[in-house]
Amino acid sequence: MSEDKPQIQYEDFAKLDIRLGKVIAAEMVPDADKLIKCTIDFGLKPSAAADGAALNGTSGEREIRTIVSGIAEWKKPEELVGKTLPYVFNLAPKMLRGVESQGMLLAASDEQGVALLMPERDIAPGTKLK
Amino acid sequence: MSEDKPQIQYEDFAKLDIRLGKVIAAEMVPDADKLIKCTIDFGLKPSAAADGAALNGTSGEREIRTIVSGIAEWKKPEELVGKTLPYVFNLAPKMLRGVESQGMLLAASDEQGVALLMPERDIAPGTKLK
Repeated sequence: MSEDKPQIQYEDFAKLDIRLGKVIAAEMVPDADKLIKCTIDFGLKPSAAADGAALNGTSGEREIRTIVSGIAEWKKPEELVGKTLPYVFNLAPKMLRGVESQGMLLAASDEQGVALLMPERDIAPGTKLK
Repeated sequence: MSEDKPQIQYEDFAKLDIRLGKVIAAEMVPDADKLIKCTIDFGLKPSAAADGAALNGTSGEREIRTIVSGIAEWKKPEELVGKTLPYVFNLAPKMLRGVESQGMLLAASDEQGVALLMPERDIAPGTKLK
């Protein structure tokens, strides 16, 4: 078991923007055994929501991102599609095997592998964690 | 909808120690409408685990903490007991209505209230998120 991390202040936590995103597509990253590339819907963009698009059904621009996760050892891409999962939303983008990941999945991990965390009820993509 | 937070680096995220904890007891904080005080099991302490206590069943010292969450508007204390939930584990303790909270629940929150996040399978308390 690894040692404990130093204590942090609330401000350190508050820098993070963690949101729920809905996986709308997922596929293996070519030539990478462990990486799954997901297309994630984070709901309406703020400008669209402010325009009242949220009330008008499907109109309005949505925040759609590509996020790469190293969980292919335990999950198949098709198992992820449709799930609403927590992501670090404001992490600097990172290139992984030629794919730009625009955020990071937050999941539990033990010796059996990854365990996804899922909201207890239906909840809109883009909802923040706090 | 609030504005976006500035981008962060991985190191900012890595400062956080987020772990699953199992709620073993919960009660309302006296004279506070919104606060629930939970007793959380975060599994064996590293020293105990290193001694092999994890292999010996119930022996070994466990990491038990008190954590206060402002979710009483949506959850009853008894609904929380037995659930395994994500907590910010290394947040500086904070006094809330006379109770020291030694960490913070991580949950989604929308206009309908709080939505707990739960692991998709049984997983040991103390398991870290990453």
